[in-house]
Amino acid sequence: MGAPFFGRLLHGGDYNPEQWLNFPEILEEDLRLFREAHINTVTLGVFSWSMLEPRDGEFTFDWLLEIMDRLHKAGISVILATPSGARPKWMADAWPEVLRVDAERRRALFGGRHNHCYTSPVYREKVRRIDTELARRAGEHPAVIAWHISNEFGGECHCPLCQQEFRRWLQKRYQDIGKLNEAWQTVFWSHVYDDFPQIESPSPIGENGLHGLKLDWKRFVTEQTVDFARAEIQALRDAGSRKPVTANLMYDFDGLDYRRFADVLDVISWDNYPSWHKKEERITALDTAVQHDYMRSLKRQPFLLMESCPAATNWQAVSKVKRPGMLLAASLQAVAHGSDSVLYFQMRQSRGSFEKFHGAVIDHWGGDSRVLQEVAETGRALECLSEVCGSGVRSDVALIMDRESRWAMQDAAGPRNENLRYMDLFLRLYGAVRAAGVNADILGEDQSLDGYRVVILPMVYMFKEGFAEKIRAFVSGGGTLVATYWNGVVNDTDNCWLGAAPHGLTDVLGLRSKELDALYDGDCNAAAPVLGNVPGFTHTYTCGTFCDVTELTTAVPVLAYTGDFYAGEAALAFNRFGDGTAWYAGALFEERLYQDLLRVVLRDAGVQTDARALFGGSGIPEGVSVTSRARGDVRYVFVQNFNRFAVRIPAELPQGAEVLYGSFRGKLEPLETLVVKFS
Amino acid sequence: MGAPFFGRLLHGGDYNPEQWLNFPEILEEDLRLFREAHINTVTLGVFSWSMLEPRDGEFTFDWLLEIMDRLHKAGISVILATPSGARPKWMADAWPEVLRVDAERRRALFGGRHNHCYTSPVYREKVRRIDTELARRAGEHPAVIAWHISNEFGGECHCPLCQQEFRRWLQKRYQDIGKLNEAWQTVFWSHVYDDFPQIESPSPIGENGLHGLKLDWKRFVTEQTVDFARAEIQALRDAGSRKPVTANLMYDFDGLDYRRFADVLDVISWDNYPSWHKKEERITALDTAVQHDYMRSLKRQPFLLMESCPAATNWQAVSKVKRPGMLLAASLQAVAHGSDSVLYFQMRQSRGSFEKFHGAVIDHWGGDSRVLQEVAETGRALECLSEVCGSGVRSDVALIMDRESRWAMQDAAGPRNENLRYMDLFLRLYGAVRAAGVNADILGEDQSLDGYRVVILPMVYMFKEGFAEKIRAFVSGGGTLVATYWNGVVNDTDNCWLGAAPHGLTDVLGLRSKELDALYDGDCNAAAPVLGNVPGFTHTYTCGTFCDVTELTTAVPVLAYTGDFYAGEAALAFNRFGDGTAWYAGALFEERLYQDLLRVVLRDAGVQTDARALFGGSGIPEGVSVTSRARGDVRYVFVQNFNRFAVRIPAELPQGAEVLYGSFRGKLEPLETLVVKFS
Amino acid sequence: MGAPFFGRLLHGGDYNPEQWLNFPEILEEDLRLFREAHINTVTLGVFSWSMLEPRDGEFTFDWLLEIMDRLHKAGISVILATPSGARPKWMADAWPEVLRVDAERRRALFGGRHNHCYTSPVYREKVRRIDTELARRAGEHPAVIAWHISNEFGGECHCPLCQQEFRRWLQKRYQDIGKLNEAWQTVFWSHVYDDFPQIESPSPIGENGLHGLKLDWKRFVTEQTVDFARAEIQALRDAGSRKPVTANLMYDFDGLDYRRFADVLDVISWDNYPSWHKKEERITALDTAVQHDYMRSLKRQPFLLMESCPAATNWQAVSKVKRPGMLLAASLQAVAHGSDSVLYFQMRQSRGSFEKFHGAVIDHWGGDSRVLQEVAETGRALECLSEVCGSGVRSDVALIMDRESRWAMQDAAGPRNENLRYMDLFLRLYGAVRAAGVNADILGEDQSLDGYRVVILPMVYMFKEGFAEKIRAFVSGGGTLVATYWNGVVNDTDNCWLGAAPHGLTDVLGLRSKELDALYDGDCNAAAPVLGNVPGFTHTYTCGTFCDVTELTTAVPVLAYTGDFYAGEAALAFNRFGDGTAWYAGALFEERLYQDLLRVVLRDAGVQTDARALFGGSGIPEGVSVTSRARGDVRYVFVQNFNRFAVRIPAELPQGAEVLYGSFRGKLEPLETLVVKFS
Repeated sequence: MGAPFFGRLLHGGDYNPEQWLNFPEILEEDLRLFREAHINTVTLGVFSWSMLEPRDGEFTFDWLLEIMDRLHKAGISVILATPSGARPKWMADAWPEVLRVDAERRRALFGGRHNHCYTSPVYREKVRRIDTELARRAGEHPAVIAWHISNEFGGECHCPLCQQEFRRWLQKRYQDIGKLNEAWQTVFWSHVYDDFPQIESPSPIGENGLHGLKLDWKRFVTEQTVDFARAEIQALRDAGSRKPVTANLMYDFDGLDYRRFADVLDVISWDNYPSWHKKEERITALDTAVQHDYMRSLKRQPFLLMESCPAATNWQAVSKVKRPGMLLAASLQAVAHGSDSVLYFQMRQSRGSFEKFHGAVIDHWGGDSRVLQEVAETGRALECLSEVCGSGVRSDVALIMDRESRWAMQDAAGPRNENLRYMDLFLRLYGAVRAAGVNADILGEDQSLDGYRVVILPMVYMFKEGFAEKIRAFVSGGGTLVATYWNGVVNDTDNCWLGAAPHGLTDVLGLRSKELDALYDGDCNAAAPVLGNVPGFTHTYTCGTFCDVTELTTAVPVLAYTGDFYAGEAALAFNRFGDGTAWYAGALFEERLYQDLLRVVLRDAGVQTDARALFGGSGIPEGVSVTSRARGDVRYVFVQNFNRFAVRIPAELPQGAEVLYGSFRGKLEPLETLVVKFS
Repeated sequence: MGAPFFGRLLHGGDYNPEQWLNFPEILEEDLRLFREAHINTVTLGVFSWSMLEPRDGEFTFDWLLEIMDRLHKAGISVILATPSGARPKWMADAWPEVLRVDAERRRALFGGRHNHCYTSPVYREKVRRIDTELARRAGEHPAVIAWHISNEFGGECHCPLCQQEFRRWLQKRYQDIGKLNEAWQTVFWSHVYDDFPQIESPSPIGENGLHGLKLDWKRFVTEQTVDFARAEIQALRDAGSRKPVTANLMYDFDGLDYRRFADVLDVISWDNYPSWHKKEERITALDTAVQHDYMRSLKRQPFLLMESCPAATNWQAVSKVKRPGMLLAASLQAVAHGSDSVLYFQMRQSRGSFEKFHGAVIDHWGGDSRVLQEVAETGRALECLSEVCGSGVRSDVALIMDRESRWAMQDAAGPRNENLRYMDLFLRLYGAVRAAGVNADILGEDQSLDGYRVVILPMVYMFKEGFAEKIRAFVSGGGTLVATYWNGVVNDTDNCWLGAAPHGLTDVLGLRSKELDALYDGDCNAAAPVLGNVPGFTHTYTCGTFCDVTELTTAVPVLAYTGDFYAGEAALAFNRFGDGTAWYAGALFEERLYQDLLRVVLRDAGVQTDARALFGGSGIPEGVSVTSRARGDVRYVFVQNFNRFAVRIPAELPQGAEVLYGSFRGKLEPLETLVVKFS
Repeated sequence: MGAPFFGRLLHGGDYNPEQWLNFPEILEEDLRLFREAHINTVTLGVFSWSMLEPRDGEFTFDWLLEIMDRLHKAGISVILATPSGARPKWMADAWPEVLRVDAERRRALFGGRHNHCYTSPVYREKVRRIDTELARRAGEHPAVIAWHISNEFGGECHCPLCQQEFRRWLQKRYQDIGKLNEAWQTVFWSHVYDDFPQIESPSPIGENGLHGLKLDWKRFVTEQTVDFARAEIQALRDAGSRKPVTANLMYDFDGLDYRRFADVLDVISWDNYPSWHKKEERITALDTAVQHDYMRSLKRQPFLLMESCPAATNWQAVSKVKRPGMLLAASLQAVAHGSDSVLYFQMRQSRGSFEKFHGAVIDHWGGDSRVLQEVAETGRALECLSEVCGSGVRSDVALIMDRESRWAMQDAAGPRNENLRYMDLFLRLYGAVRAAGVNADILGEDQSLDGYRVVILPMVYMFKEGFAEKIRAFVSGGGTLVATYWNGVVNDTDNCWLGAAPHGLTDVLGLRSKELDALYDGDCNAAAPVLGNVPGFTHTYTCGTFCDVTELTTAVPVLAYTGDFYAGEAALAFNRFGDGTAWYAGALFEERLYQDLLRVVLRDAGVQTDARALFGGSGIPEGVSVTSRARGDVRYVFVQNFNRFAVRIPAELPQGAEVLYGSFRGKLEPLETLVVKFS
């Protein structure tokens, strides 16, 4: 099934009219302000369970249907949410099994949200029933365009039901307890299991050092959550709905392997809450871009920006008001990276409780605010960009970011435990690709590498079965590989690969890792160009955090360490393998190395970009983002200036190109966006 | 009932002879040293329960009565404490219900102090019995001058008995569960209650986001504690005692709303433990002054300094020895702000356990120490100031500091969560009043504003029902209001007031708050004088933390922001309303702004001070505190130099003035105190 | 019983072939690499319980015996470990009582290691049985040279069985509950006990302020652990084994009083994991030296270095690779201080679980690494130094470091709670002794002072019964005492000594402590030479943290404070007492003071050192360690350069001296070691 096509870029967000049923004048005013703000879509029903089923089996849908009618009449579409993100108190009181048990084996009291056992048959049955009712009574309403399953899935439960299910899952995975013991190396510290029923989930007051157990527990939590989502979708389908389904994912969320949701959901959506203005906007924009690309790459299809904040959030230590223009720039950045929507949490600020100060399109004052005006401006921009809806993103470059590998790496107990600086490394590599105006996909190890020209492996600590072979084939077939330190260390069950590292790639890279030195945060080394190095590097780059000391076989050194007992050893090297090339960058270098390296890599790999047509030989100024979407031969190139100063666009508008949004006048003001259509 | 009059300034403190019953020579030596140290009062019985009732229903009062006889013979009065601050182990063993249950629902083991359920009928009955015995056997002893109830009330209990009592309290408050749902906005996250028995107290492992619940829980804890205190007092009264009753309160204690104790206690007392010498003494002195004024304002009567440390404390990270003169200055500061006593914890250092190194009048060495000499000097000073006893404090200025509002604000989850810097703002405003030598009262929202000329609202986040109306009446009747950002945001149940903010005061202030920007700690803005501003401000003041962006209606701008997207908008403005004036200070400014602003405000409001007679036009030097007590036409003006250098007193001794304590010689040495009597 | 004599310096370490039983080629390769690395000893059986007794009562020793045969054939000795450091899961499942209960009274789940109740009769019985089997089946194998009991004893259990045992232990100690109440000062906060069964172990959710209880609990935990070790040893002896027994202790371990193990173990061993290269190596070397000396002094016999890391550890925040030469220098440092072994954890890196990246002689790569080469070099050095084996260490200087005193001091709640800087003070005093090339013993209060010339008391907070008398006798008999602030404050049960402090030594020192001032970390004072002071001090030394203000009787001031209200009072003083001398250093001074003071003290006390023969009058360069072992008239002087630069050795090789290891050529390179034999 391809990505669902909504026909227009969606603009709106989470709306909770059930908080205002006693204020009919406010519900009326909302519609007027939605119109003014160019809103075309709202999400209803998130956390509405108490209002839809106030007592077990008693349903009240009238208020919902009435609101939907009025929205529909106003031309506003509805994304309908299942209410399973928070359950009513009557359920917790009658069936305590729906409450989670934490890793210390304490049953939670009722409270908060996302607080239910995904295994509990009672909970699953209650969810199935409300979902069925919802689909039957409201699902076919003409306003409805999609389903939104639960809300921000996350968390884990250690109750007896989950323990049982975990053991069943393990038994299916390993069949034989001997295989599990081998896979988890339980002989270490005498933790050998005689049988599956002996196994308990990891706990700070119990087993906490068995890496294989901890990794499999995380896998199980993902599988159980996916299974829960699958059951919700099935309930909707059984009730006859065929509308596309999404669930809202979260920023770099560590609790679940989102890759496992890709096959279950019709469209990926996510909630994006950057701390704009905390760091320079260009830094925050790059960080956000990674997440957009990661979400898009899950299905390699357009996604939805399901939540974002129109004003200031309320849960950060300090929540700055968004500066004028920031909302528009951030919203269009999502579209530039593949989103078919700009949706907000929330349409109207609630009066009370935990999120009463979370920014909203309509605030407590309730009038025509600056925020409302900026939302309206964003709405007009989206209308202008309407034809972009449904177009894809083409990337020649893939970076591997695998959640299971990251789980294992975080739990490694290795040379550095304090701060692996994984994201620093990732951002430097990603940023170097993006600085060239080149799109990038961000993939799990299981995704196909077909069609890419460059593949980058930043600290892919775990090489799962078959991954090394896939990389070998990619390089020998003519691809370019860029690998870093701390690659290919462990296998699927978090046991170290024996023999030379990176596992399976030592001939591809023409070297092996001998010793991985960890540096204290204040420590520093540097890498200087080797005389006559092929790519012609001339600078010396500082490096730190990790310095890999390697033994070269066929690889050619480019940079060599200048300090410590491994001075003179290769810090950067490349190797020809089959028809391809493989680079090894052995330390965490300063940003500039990655920029210089990727410039060479992308050029040699023949990666093209429309950015060249706009910025010519001088290159894209730092802080300017160039991203493109495409449909057939048509390319929509988004140029955004995330600097706090204006930048020049030196070129003329290329032939065949036209301005779809913004103005082409030789420069871009801070936070300004320009969209050029090439066809 | 007016404040009890003790006839002399009390000097002494907590005394635990029960720790020394096996050391008769030490008990003898104590009396000799008390005499040497000019001690006239001791507190007996705090934590003596085990010694008074070693087994359930077995009482041993002989040792106590014997000590009281000897003290009385030595001219030393006794404040008699009920022992309910810590209970014997036999009680916890026989009735575990007396032990507290914490928010995670864990029943405590026996240990520590302040560890009992205030609801438990068993505990209440045991307390009633011991209090009755104490009152009957010792309460009418001629040495006794007052009762001291329990010790430093605090803490909360989540046991089933407390849950039940909480629900009963809520039912009485809201009558109808629908009203409670509305008040707490339970529809948010689907937490609607069907009935009162469903409600549970807040918990980190349960409900923790429902602001209304959390606020009402804190109110309940206060009410339950007050009720417990009331029951203790009733036991004493039922046993026939008519002596005045106090309970010792604590520094800026967040756990209870002390306003609720004002009606229950005959006299307020508190325990004061500043970290002298950690910061400059003038800074610590100002911080301490706030607390003295807050305590005095609870009943607007003289209070008692119930505990203070004659030497170094033992529970701070670093406890510096008090420098020579510090004890005297700190003790007289209490009297200056309205205390009729200087009492210490403790008279003699215990040999063992948790407080064995807490400073005392008599230390382990047991001899004639520097501390003992300084205590004696303080005793002589108090004898010299004897006539001050019972006199009041008159203030033209009131600052609002409301515990319930602070509770709500801390829990707000708003623009800043890390550090609201409430006390920084409060101290800058309070310090600006005190720098002018003007007394200040510190009031809750429920206290009367009659007779004040200036009322200051520093971050009064919660405007309870009727509060805005009281302020309106105050200003329109000719008063001067100084308000800051983050005023009038929520109502009594922590729901946001809808419409313009500050709630109910936008016409009084002539403006409304549009956006409250939060700044990171490193961020900074500034406010520059508006051309031709009426008060004639000429400086530019830095500001940060919060910057309120306002829309002015009738207000006149005085300062305008110089930076960010709201540059040029008003940062300080004033408005005429009725016969009064209202100022709005929209950001956290540097100290100087508040000094400059209050100088204008106090002058325009016609606030007088005797400080002018002593320091003339040049004003009071920084670090010098001028405070006054009054009885009829007589004023006792305390001048204290908290600087580390001497300061000049430029004026001659005014006519009709006489020196009551210290010497008038044109200057004050560091930590020196001068008391001048005007009549 | 004297120290066991192993005939050669042991070289090897922990070996876990049970992790590799499915990899016979690896077990084969291990033997080859052991040979290459000059390995002569391995420790087997640590954590092997699951492999030795896979099900209750089913034993499988074949794999172990086979390995032992092969090792023996290769000339490799075996230290055989009892497996009680971690128990199999079947035992926890069948007898939950073997699982620990923490201070919050939560029973642990199965997991980790060192997780068993030392009291549990079931656990003790299971341990006795496996130990008996082990001794019978493998203990008499010719490869076995010693027993290794359990692994890194530590931790505590609060289960009902332990509570009962604790009460029994207390009853035995105090006989009468009244004596216990007096000893613990339970009258404070009304915590008086009626009888022993009322007592509960300390808990954060119960009793946590009764110092006497907390101290006795720690004592009990030690006693119970020692008793457990004793039972294990008894099982081995009952099974007929006469091999010497050790247990591996840990770096400055706070959980147990290791002094209590001295009589139980035949030889002390310990695990040494310094963070080399985190600070300068000379600093880390000094810190490590303290621990070596402490361990050696426990029995005043040679000890074993049981574990150390041949490469980088894996549990520190940052684990740097050991620089070339570091392993050799660190290993020889252990020998220099009295070790008869250099043993590593671990021989081969495990594939999985928590310690898979802990450095090992053989790593995952499995080949001939730099680490393996440096291990081999260390092995060759040990062979060269073989005759040193069994020789002792002679010290004229003793420093008192008493665990019970430290426990009490940490819990004191006194003038400073944040950071007492105990180890800073200790290291400055110890470092000053070592800078003179003089050996030092580090003793508990109960050890004999016979034969020492100088005794140093750094913050010996607790003076146990009889300790002051021992010090008095030592000084009056001609010894030299160096005492600091915070000495002799409390007695054995943590009650303050009444009267003058330091308890029992005021006439020895000729002074008493009046006030102990605590300084904030930023604060500073200084001590300047008193005019005409006897030792002729001429410098002014900064000081801080603590400044003791004393009253001198017969003592003569040497330095006087320059600042604060006690300026002019003595900061350093000395006193003649009987035939000896006593120094009092009242503050934490900069390092230099201690160097200058000890130079005078050692000279006046007539302490000799061979260092003088090598370095002459100019003294030992900073960062160079000179340590000696001795047997009869023969002295082995180890000279090690822990600087990052070469140092000169100015003297010729003295007559009668010969070079046993290294080369005598007028200088020492960084990390170089020279061993000179004097006879």
